[in-house]
Amino acid sequence: MPITDPVQLTADLIRCPSVTPVEGGALVLLERLLSAAGFECTRVDRGDTSNLFARWGAKGHARSFGFNGHTDVVPVGDAAAWTVDPFGAAEKDGLLYGRGATDMKSGVAAFVAAAIDLVQDTPPDGAILLTITGDEEGDATDGTTALLDYMETAQEQMSVCLVGEPTCPNQMGDMIKIGRRGSMTAWFTVTGKQGHSAYPHRANNPLNPMVRLMDRLASHTLDTGTEHFDPSTLAVVTVDTGNPATNVIPAQATSAVNIRFNDAHSGASLSKWLEDEAAKVAAEFGVTIETKIKISGESFITPPGALSDLVSGAVAAETGVQPELSTTGGTSDARFVKNHCPVVEFGLVGKTMHQVDEHVVIDHVHQLKSIYSRILKDYFA
Amino acid sequence: MPITDPVQLTADLIRCPSVTPVEGGALVLLERLLSAAGFECTRVDRGDTSNLFARWGAKGHARSFGFNGHTDVVPVGDAAAWTVDPFGAAEKDGLLYGRGATDMKSGVAAFVAAAIDLVQDTPPDGAILLTITGDEEGDATDGTTALLDYMETAQEQMSVCLVGEPTCPNQMGDMIKIGRRGSMTAWFTVTGKQGHSAYPHRANNPLNPMVRLMDRLASHTLDTGTEHFDPSTLAVVTVDTGNPATNVIPAQATSAVNIRFNDAHSGASLSKWLEDEAAKVAAEFGVTIETKIKISGESFITPPGALSDLVSGAVAAETGVQPELSTTGGTSDARFVKNHCPVVEFGLVGKTMHQVDEHVVIDHVHQLKSIYSRILKDYFA
Repeated sequence: MPITDPVQLTADLIRCPSVTPVEGGALVLLERLLSAAGFECTRVDRGDTSNLFARWGAKGHARSFGFNGHTDVVPVGDAAAWTVDPFGAAEKDGLLYGRGATDMKSGVAAFVAAAIDLVQDTPPDGAILLTITGDEEGDATDGTTALLDYMETAQEQMSVCLVGEPTCPNQMGDMIKIGRRGSMTAWFTVTGKQGHSAYPHRANNPLNPMVRLMDRLASHTLDTGTEHFDPSTLAVVTVDTGNPATNVIPAQATSAVNIRFNDAHSGASLSKWLEDEAAKVAAEFGVTIETKIKISGESFITPPGALSDLVSGAVAAETGVQPELSTTGGTSDARFVKNHCPVVEFGLVGKTMHQVDEHVVIDHVHQLKSIYSRILKDYFA
Repeated sequence: MPITDPVQLTADLIRCPSVTPVEGGALVLLERLLSAAGFECTRVDRGDTSNLFARWGAKGHARSFGFNGHTDVVPVGDAAAWTVDPFGAAEKDGLLYGRGATDMKSGVAAFVAAAIDLVQDTPPDGAILLTITGDEEGDATDGTTALLDYMETAQEQMSVCLVGEPTCPNQMGDMIKIGRRGSMTAWFTVTGKQGHSAYPHRANNPLNPMVRLMDRLASHTLDTGTEHFDPSTLAVVTVDTGNPATNVIPAQATSAVNIRFNDAHSGASLSKWLEDEAAKVAAEFGVTIETKIKISGESFITPPGALSDLVSGAVAAETGVQPELSTTGGTSDARFVKNHCPVVEFGLVGKTMHQVDEHVVIDHVHQLKSIYSRILKDYFA
């Protein structure tokens, strides 16, 4: 009965300085470990990014459980502010310190340890597929998407997938993510006609249509929420002119708005709305308004059902906490995985992620491995 | 019958490099000339600024005609772009070149020449008072105001005053200024609560009240004009945030508006309106809005009457053009003189003022002297 220690593995991974997009030895370490445990491993590198695909069990098995995670970490930031070596994996008072301690080397360590123990101890009738990327914190263009592209080509298929990102806001087990709102940003440039402040009628002030448009967008109620989602939100994040001369009406003004949207909308429907509103104001004021839109991700949902029940049950059994099924929060690689198979996310309490002196409660790492082990056991039961 | 040549005097003044606040020899030259012609001269220097007060005739005479002007000039700017020496007073093709050629060494030369000729040729029953400052183009804190302060102390009094600034937009004689709109600037700082774009309800976006307030101010009709004035205008000149992070709701936003106002308003009434509007929006959105206001000048008017009739008549007689009585344009030292006595402004076509290769039509300088001479003759008739 092999026992793979997830805390030791987390510490080993922290010691790999894998700041995006540097591999740092993290994927090499995991590949060695998984290969030794009988996983078929494939390095899927694209561009600057290193990724690892690993499968135990038969390709194309109808019961193929997937885990997704990343070994890359965000930069150290203000190195002088750290009280420990960010890549030293120091243990103190029941805590393990280091960049990636919560986001998410511990999550990867926990599911790798759970998977290795299961296949070595009680080999299931099924397959376990691990997709581990080295580019989640960066552009993510050659990370999980590269792994999914590889899987499509190689005819590898997950039946379901669990992303091991930190999801719990306050205590272990309090939240599972079953979807995310979409995210998009629109930049507006209004061009009018410069002039002297004393003669506004000879100029065409771009700020008048700009503040009108921003007021309309900010005042609009996109929706009041849907079955599984909070209301969509729009935030005007900046309006800028940079005109120091109070006797001059500027020629141009810029702004940006960020929208987080639920399944009542799509990036396309909101783009059309934004462009229509801009066109209306442009016509009212006789200016030109240039709109540039970037859709970071569409909203997605894996509706409550078999997969969320499986994960919730294991979480409740191991922690005594009944997790909330949530669609809050920012973006994650689940936005790519959702095109492949049903996906939910469950992991640690993420309070110190991206911060100085990032750390994880050592007991939580053991607990997380136990939860993942129970999920696998229940899935293959 | 002495003939003082206003073009020669303009050229002599141009050769004095009197960039604000440097005296440059210009006032010394005028003091010498006026003293020789029987004017009682007093240098009224305050701070860095040199000013000249000159009176011919009895102090306190009931018919005291005043001229106001300045010998300081704006900087040369891009010296390499000039095709002539900015302080060389080159003559070419009927034009006289140099910094101050139109604004307003020629104006000063014209009224000084007209005054000297009159008092030497046909001494009037009255007084002529000249207030010539070396700080009109700068802060103007120690310029014409210093001269007026001196006059109050010395019990010197002008019955009426003509400011010799360029006033004609297109051709000699087409405009007399009988007043000016007031000017003020208000700066707004809205402080809300910073937060993540994904959770606007946990933040309080200062841009929402900012665009609402700016839209309300820009949409408001201050008035539709008054008897002698164009409508008051308000221009939002800048709105700024400087937030490059689209996932962050900023804590603060700033803006500035510039108002040009007629005699339907005062700086105080508009300040109250702006502060009331800001307070309303602040209450609606639960933010704080700090308002800083600077009143550059109140509106003023010398209503059409004896003084404008006098100037109009002389202009029409000398040029054949019936001048428009206008209150348009930016600020001038008339805003100080109006507290002392009725004041109007008449001078050259100002097209090249403050520009590279500033120049004046030589014939216009002669014509301007003739107009000023006729005004004096008619006034004392």
